[in-house]
Amino acid sequence: MRWEVRVELKPGILDAEGESIARSLALLGIAGVRRVGTARIYDLEFENVSAPEAERLARDAVDRLLANPVIHRVTVRPGPS
Amino acid sequence: MRWEVRVELKPGILDAEGESIARSLALLGIAGVRRVGTARIYDLEFENVSAPEAERLARDAVDRLLANPVIHRVTVRPGPS
Repeated sequence: MRWEVRVELKPGILDAEGESIARSLALLGIAGVRRVGTARIYDLEFENVSAPEAERLARDAVDRLLANPVIHRVTVRPGPS
Repeated sequence: MRWEVRVELKPGILDAEGESIARSLALLGIAGVRRVGTARIYDLEFENVSAPEAERLARDAVDRLLANPVIHRVTVRPGPS
């Protein structure tokens, strides 16, 4: 049983890494890129846990370790099995 | 037009961040997690570029900046519009 957590910055929060990549792409001559956003994926693999319990644990992991609610937008969804 | 690039480590390459997160979750009492894998998402937003051209530019960005073919597995797909 896998759950995939996606953590990205909320709209309005500066994505410094994305900005830096956009600038680097322009310098490399890769034009036409208006914006680069970044996100982090955490693929959590559970064992001996029911699907609802795994989701609960995944959301617990988000709240206590993986994301900061002030700046992050989080999506939790079932991962590829 | 958006393309989403997902960069993750190839199977067999140590995911140090994932391992560290798995250990931290166990220390927090969040049990049942067998493995944590991590990936990075780059959401590339293009302007004034056709869809095929945007895909070509996204793959060019992967080859020249975003990933290392020795250790990374890359997926490129159309992003949410």
